[in-house]
Amino acid sequence: MDGRILVPWEQNRDNAPEQLTVEVYDGRGEPPAGVLDDVVFYVVPYGRVQRVELMRRMPRLRAVQLLTAGYEHALADLPEGVRLYNGRGLHDASTAEHVVALILAAQRELPRWAADQRAHVWDPHYTRSLADCRVLIVGYGSIGAAVEARLLPFEATVVRLARRARPASGVYGVEDLHRLLPDADVVVVVTPHTPETEGLIGAAELAALPDGALVVNVGRGPVVDTAALLAERGRIRAALDVTDPEPLPADHPLWDAPGVFVTPHVAGGSAAFYPRARRFVDEQLRRWAAGEPLVNRVSLDAG
Amino acid sequence: MDGRILVPWEQNRDNAPEQLTVEVYDGRGEPPAGVLDDVVFYVVPYGRVQRVELMRRMPRLRAVQLLTAGYEHALADLPEGVRLYNGRGLHDASTAEHVVALILAAQRELPRWAADQRAHVWDPHYTRSLADCRVLIVGYGSIGAAVEARLLPFEATVVRLARRARPASGVYGVEDLHRLLPDADVVVVVTPHTPETEGLIGAAELAALPDGALVVNVGRGPVVDTAALLAERGRIRAALDVTDPEPLPADHPLWDAPGVFVTPHVAGGSAAFYPRARRFVDEQLRRWAAGEPLVNRVSLDAG
Repeated sequence: MDGRILVPWEQNRDNAPEQLTVEVYDGRGEPPAGVLDDVVFYVVPYGRVQRVELMRRMPRLRAVQLLTAGYEHALADLPEGVRLYNGRGLHDASTAEHVVALILAAQRELPRWAADQRAHVWDPHYTRSLADCRVLIVGYGSIGAAVEARLLPFEATVVRLARRARPASGVYGVEDLHRLLPDADVVVVVTPHTPETEGLIGAAELAALPDGALVVNVGRGPVVDTAALLAERGRIRAALDVTDPEPLPADHPLWDAPGVFVTPHVAGGSAAFYPRARRFVDEQLRRWAAGEPLVNRVSLDAG
Repeated sequence: MDGRILVPWEQNRDNAPEQLTVEVYDGRGEPPAGVLDDVVFYVVPYGRVQRVELMRRMPRLRAVQLLTAGYEHALADLPEGVRLYNGRGLHDASTAEHVVALILAAQRELPRWAADQRAHVWDPHYTRSLADCRVLIVGYGSIGAAVEARLLPFEATVVRLARRARPASGVYGVEDLHRLLPDADVVVVVTPHTPETEGLIGAAELAALPDGALVVNVGRGPVVDTAALLAERGRIRAALDVTDPEPLPADHPLWDAPGVFVTPHVAGGSAAFYPRARRFVDEQLRRWAAGEPLVNRVSLDAG
């Protein structure tokens, strides 16, 4: 088949349909000389620095696959007419796992035990549990479903809420939020940051929660109103993987707020990502060879 | 129905079959005067101090229900001929939940994030995950099954091992332990402490584990050889809810061992216990009224 394909991992080359010409470029250093001239499909290596500018040196390029859900960083270098695909869903397992880790950390007081360990103190006491909790998932989609699947065996109850109600799927709409908050032991925020979601969990919403409720945010920081959360400190607990501002400045009061646990935006960044990303690239190559449409195409505005 | 029953919670009195005479005694202070003379069934209130010595002042006593799995503390005061029932299973949900909390804490580095939070440091980096891990459960029984149910949605693989192999149930026997260790990413120890299990995870077993493997112990401290674990520090990680010795003295090297997370024997002690214990007592009262055998009877040696 005509043209070369650049993939980030040897597994993808080894598993590729035999009619494809596949070479490995993992993002370190420069691709072999002359290769860029023939690249028709470029899977951008995953890492802090993504070599998206290489697209400009690929005159035959027809498709670009990113391994991140976000794609804004690639737009400036994307040649006209080249199709763009993103990594939507590849971080779901990692993110859902971190949500459960944060809930369990808060309910079973893991930060306290870690502090006691550092102080060499053995001081057991009773804790909350996840069992029997009612968990409201705000922004129920693929990550929310992955969170739900992991929570149910803990004998927790899950309540689903999305922008639009989908009664046939048991999903409430955002108009039901205030009615659902008073019964929520845990609120999990997994929404993206949009004008509609900014401050979605604000003073009124936090006030509607029962004493001791836990707010977990793995979506985007500005969806939860930081000032409102700080105003409720001591009454409402929080476990935040994303914050507003982010990164959190050293002198920010969230660091020391009682009942608040902070992790530095690491929900999606775990070993769970890699095997899922490699399998996804394998499958995209299979579709490419078979002449099927690739999945995860990004719709770009004409302008 | 003849005689009085003492229960620890009002729910049990309110839900009791109407032919029973049920009174609440929650372990605080003394039971009402005269009541003890008529007690035929005593559900010992749950707490640090269990009023088992009251059995000596119950001349009509026929059955005693403990809410702990352990029963040794009740034997000295148990009048001859009185049947003893324990709380086996009531802590399964809480314990299994803590096992997953410990695994996630280790894989997603929660103690590190807690330390960074205390230092006001935002320093993200990639972590391990639970997804794709092979988890070997040593002592597969009711708690092991509860752990397994919680692990499977994380896309982990569970390998079951018990004292005796049960091939029809996919359970390996202890004779397979050494063969299974080299492929285990996580080993969960949930066995009781018996002569057979003491030191079951010792130097040879730890040496058989791959680099970076995680040992989780919620069974009893002496099942894992502490000195052998310390000798492997840096290569093998551990998350320990039980230790040997226990409690861990302030100057013990486990506190500061790299890759070791310690919680102070709190796996069973969470809010998950109470609703399950109350429902269990309700059900025992129903059996008592119906003339059915109670469950969880403790077999006592004749001597």
